[in-house]
Amino acid sequence: MELQSVKINDPYWTPYLDLVRDTVIPYQLEALNDRIPGAEPSYAVANFRIAAGLAEGEFGGMVFQDSDLYKWLEAVGYSLAVKPDEDLEREADELIDLIASAQQEDGYLNTYFTVAEPGARWTNLTECHELYCAGHMIEAAVAYYRGTGKTRLLDVAKRMADYISSVFGTGEGQIRGYDGHQEIELALVKLYEATGEKRYLNLSLYFINERGQQPSFFHKEWERRGRTSHWSPGTVQLNPPDLSYFQAHKQVREQESTAGHAVRAVYMYTAMADLAVYTGDEGLLEACRRLWRNTVRKQMYINGSIGSTHHGEAFTFDYDLPNDTNYSETCASIGLIFFASRMLRLEMNGEYADVLERALYNTVTAGIARDGKHYFYVNPMEVWPEASEQNPGRHHVKPVRQQWYGCACCPPNITRLLSSLGQYVFTAGKDTLYVHLYIGSETRVAFGGDDQAAAKAVIKLDSSLPWQGEAKLTVSDREGSGRFTLALRVPSWSHTTVFTLNGKPVIPEIRDGYAYLEREWQEGDQFAVSLDMRPQRIYANPLVRADAGKVALQRGPLVYCLEETDNGALLPALSLPRDAEIREAAGTGDVLEGAVLLEVDGLRLEDGDWTENKGEEDYEKNDRINNVNKDEDSLYRSTPAAVKPQKLTAVPYTLWGNRKPGEMLVWIRE
Amino acid sequence: MELQSVKINDPYWTPYLDLVRDTVIPYQLEALNDRIPGAEPSYAVANFRIAAGLAEGEFGGMVFQDSDLYKWLEAVGYSLAVKPDEDLEREADELIDLIASAQQEDGYLNTYFTVAEPGARWTNLTECHELYCAGHMIEAAVAYYRGTGKTRLLDVAKRMADYISSVFGTGEGQIRGYDGHQEIELALVKLYEATGEKRYLNLSLYFINERGQQPSFFHKEWERRGRTSHWSPGTVQLNPPDLSYFQAHKQVREQESTAGHAVRAVYMYTAMADLAVYTGDEGLLEACRRLWRNTVRKQMYINGSIGSTHHGEAFTFDYDLPNDTNYSETCASIGLIFFASRMLRLEMNGEYADVLERALYNTVTAGIARDGKHYFYVNPMEVWPEASEQNPGRHHVKPVRQQWYGCACCPPNITRLLSSLGQYVFTAGKDTLYVHLYIGSETRVAFGGDDQAAAKAVIKLDSSLPWQGEAKLTVSDREGSGRFTLALRVPSWSHTTVFTLNGKPVIPEIRDGYAYLEREWQEGDQFAVSLDMRPQRIYANPLVRADAGKVALQRGPLVYCLEETDNGALLPALSLPRDAEIREAAGTGDVLEGAVLLEVDGLRLEDGDWTENKGEEDYEKNDRINNVNKDEDSLYRSTPAAVKPQKLTAVPYTLWGNRKPGEMLVWIRE
Repeated sequence: MELQSVKINDPYWTPYLDLVRDTVIPYQLEALNDRIPGAEPSYAVANFRIAAGLAEGEFGGMVFQDSDLYKWLEAVGYSLAVKPDEDLEREADELIDLIASAQQEDGYLNTYFTVAEPGARWTNLTECHELYCAGHMIEAAVAYYRGTGKTRLLDVAKRMADYISSVFGTGEGQIRGYDGHQEIELALVKLYEATGEKRYLNLSLYFINERGQQPSFFHKEWERRGRTSHWSPGTVQLNPPDLSYFQAHKQVREQESTAGHAVRAVYMYTAMADLAVYTGDEGLLEACRRLWRNTVRKQMYINGSIGSTHHGEAFTFDYDLPNDTNYSETCASIGLIFFASRMLRLEMNGEYADVLERALYNTVTAGIARDGKHYFYVNPMEVWPEASEQNPGRHHVKPVRQQWYGCACCPPNITRLLSSLGQYVFTAGKDTLYVHLYIGSETRVAFGGDDQAAAKAVIKLDSSLPWQGEAKLTVSDREGSGRFTLALRVPSWSHTTVFTLNGKPVIPEIRDGYAYLEREWQEGDQFAVSLDMRPQRIYANPLVRADAGKVALQRGPLVYCLEETDNGALLPALSLPRDAEIREAAGTGDVLEGAVLLEVDGLRLEDGDWTENKGEEDYEKNDRINNVNKDEDSLYRSTPAAVKPQKLTAVPYTLWGNRKPGEMLVWIRE
Repeated sequence: MELQSVKINDPYWTPYLDLVRDTVIPYQLEALNDRIPGAEPSYAVANFRIAAGLAEGEFGGMVFQDSDLYKWLEAVGYSLAVKPDEDLEREADELIDLIASAQQEDGYLNTYFTVAEPGARWTNLTECHELYCAGHMIEAAVAYYRGTGKTRLLDVAKRMADYISSVFGTGEGQIRGYDGHQEIELALVKLYEATGEKRYLNLSLYFINERGQQPSFFHKEWERRGRTSHWSPGTVQLNPPDLSYFQAHKQVREQESTAGHAVRAVYMYTAMADLAVYTGDEGLLEACRRLWRNTVRKQMYINGSIGSTHHGEAFTFDYDLPNDTNYSETCASIGLIFFASRMLRLEMNGEYADVLERALYNTVTAGIARDGKHYFYVNPMEVWPEASEQNPGRHHVKPVRQQWYGCACCPPNITRLLSSLGQYVFTAGKDTLYVHLYIGSETRVAFGGDDQAAAKAVIKLDSSLPWQGEAKLTVSDREGSGRFTLALRVPSWSHTTVFTLNGKPVIPEIRDGYAYLEREWQEGDQFAVSLDMRPQRIYANPLVRADAGKVALQRGPLVYCLEETDNGALLPALSLPRDAEIREAAGTGDVLEGAVLLEVDGLRLEDGDWTENKGEEDYEKNDRINNVNKDEDSLYRSTPAAVKPQKLTAVPYTLWGNRKPGEMLVWIRE
């Protein structure tokens, strides 16, 4: 649904959206302008100024630095759609002017290749993100156009897209290639949606179809550039690029399981689903379903994050979900949300929205600090700060959110996702309004297809989630006379769900995770749901070796975790007896005020007495000598550690790391 | 004790020694000559032929490839000491001639710098192992001299050592440096012991004293060579070498905890202990004790292996002992054995021998296959073959022993250790014979210090370890009349120990892990011990997070593990109830014949039924809708997996991986 038509007003989410609008967007503008003391510089704006000839200097930052500015502009577009802001719009317009003035005569626009490597355009698509940056420009342009009606950036994007269209393809003299980082594919679909120009859809389809053809374009390109890498200049590489990292090891329709760099993968799946929507291509749809199932049923963490290894920020293989070395990049969960939302356009199935909700409520919001100015790139299941510092295999796991990153993909990605949150709440079908997320909001709908909208209404969603389970739809401004259907998602975590219509019990039709109620809706009608908010123990499939014998806590959509600040250090020494009651408790203090915490009477292994034999030799009768050796300080011994009771306090994962830095743990020994 | 004076005859160890002599030494000679089809070539002998001018060609293999040949020759020296072998000695002599003819006029000898980089001697001590190779040459020379009485290689080694002595030092024009890989320090002590030439001891002390002085020699050297690295030619590095990797971050006497590359560390500690023996340096002794305690009480795995990460094959920090990503290099456990044996020269304390035994019986022998021709470099606590293949963070963990390695440090290191096993069984003090290891053997001793050996005897040790706990010392060939003491180690794992003298109970004096019995020993006297061989559950200190809630099995000196071939796949799904009885069982089949296995009635999490709700919607009374969502195939659910009984069979860790390849697990959920 159009973002403009959804107004969010929700006690849980509105503060996030205010934070994004009032703090994050202005803060990130400072970051993009290198004005945050102590943070790594972005160089993004500076690069455009150099490319536009307005400043002297060298290109700074990553080869894909342009995309950070584009993602920020995209967020601004969403934000202005919801709430106009003259000052912000003026600043954005100025940056758009700057971008436009960096565009080359032929439409090409990329500050790295303009400033740092002029003449080397399109020579290293594998590694240099040219089409990726173009994709983010297109997304920004579409969002800004929809948010403001202004076409200046859209025109820049169209010129670039048209130029790309002339360069790439199967024709004479064209490059039969595609980008090393998928992104332009989904962006071109948005450009098609915004302009109605089918050539953009076709260009997207070309990139998707071309990907994975053998012999590999990436290998040929590698040979052409002398087997070198952008990332280690001057060195001749022994091995060609690993194609699965780029999801280019097979044609996309033939890919059986998710593989390679996680963000690249889900951005590609998103585009595949988009194209399946518009082309009806059954092969693409089947591939989307297959890759979805593999991703979320075999390679996803409980917080809706993906990417089991920091090596290549990548998927590994089925059921390999280590808790202490995972990558679980915030951007990858954002991409998973994109993929889920596109699958919901293809077919209504609660699993898509379940995963969308899981990633949104847990990983994405964990990616940003409560102050809006610090970010996680990696979202671990388990943090031991000393190990993050002293074990190189865990260096990527940060115990504290960072101000800004040299490779700052995640911060502006969070911003654009949260700014566009309204897009994910509802889907309006021909005669049905679907509620995917229980986020207080309001939308105006018109049903009846070609019948000139037989029924129109404003539908208001009130929700007490995630802290309480009550939500209701209220119909108002009713016009016309047709029947229509309201469909409420029944989350997989709600084991017992009660529905009422105008306060009276009702049994809607349940189908694929949605509760459908069709009727002639009247002004003021209320369709309400009471979701099951009892705290739950969650177990992983035993094939997930890392979680064997462990339990996680969840309540509603929120996954919980233990933090050192509440439970003391050495969290792995804690355990949770299977029969212990899980109690709810009210959070207090800046960060936890208003939150529901969970408390359990748990146990702790004691390490204080780690001395097997206090005494010296112990001569027993029968000429036996017992326990002659003092095991003080020894690592291993034959008697187990003593166990003492300890109350465990679990906080929502999404809030972790906002207080005193320390350990964190999701999966607890049971 | 001199190796010649200890003859091993032991039902457990003799087959290992025969394997080393009859299979491993000949096999490794083939490997060093690049004659093993399918194995990675060694190039070691070929390099010497090129350096000697006997062949044309390029240097092959690692910069430290010479050391493989030296380690092999060292093993041959030990082997010939125990059992002469004319053919082997002739082959070794020929190789020694080859080595001698590769020595340069001035005494320098290193095939890499002679063949590949002439003129670049001593320009990259940090990375290029020149002194390391010299150290292994010296060790080989001393062993060969002791084994055969021949001085040809010893002369080569002395010339090289004397040349080194002229190059390194604090004098005018000398290099104030030391090697990137410690080894020459301990080797020079051996050269001193063999020759009585104090200058070699002093040179060793110089290297130890110089190490870690600031500003760092390694940093200055890095600047001098233009900030480049041997390992990535042509690239200018941003950061200087990490000094702690080389244990060069502080002077050795000031090092508080073990750090950096594990093999380098323990080789250095060995030399420090050696030097403490000969110099009486209290600062060195204290540092040795401190580093010993930190290593074995905070950073050692239960199998006596060390090195928690493959990044730099290194230690990480206290209590960080992950089971699935550890390095635990075979060579590092061999170095730990060296260190332990030197500490036993400094002070008699059972902990040194306990660790020595733990590393020997578990890691070192696990490093070599039962066929003598396949080797482990890494000794994991947990193996999941698919993860070794598909998770880059676990690529270093091999589920199957390899034929030979490009970097083949471990195979010849195992060979030289096992060939010299007799050195580790006894220590003869002034009036005491200590038994450290229960390995059937015989030695001739003379006591009485300056009194012209008031008492002489042959002491025979019979042992049924590791399968049974009976061992005894028998005195024969008694001469003289003085009293002396026999001291039997009481292993820390023997919780109840019974001693007899000539079959009658006796209570020896127990001190620091040894049982001392002093008397006027008579011909035929038998001092026997019955060690506690009951299977034990072993627990790790709760500060070892990776082992919380887990148990390992041990019996006598042997640590046990589960293998897939006995227990089925998905070993982490298995658990061992705390009260389950651990039964002994007899091993069968080629590999396990004669071994004691352990069996327990355990449990297995079932993954077969991983479907939360078989049915579709479940409409209950009271207008509630229960369990509307099928969770088939889902990763996470709120009901735990079913548990079914399963008999667990554990095999000695040292024997793992000799049957059908598959999973392995040491720490079992309890």
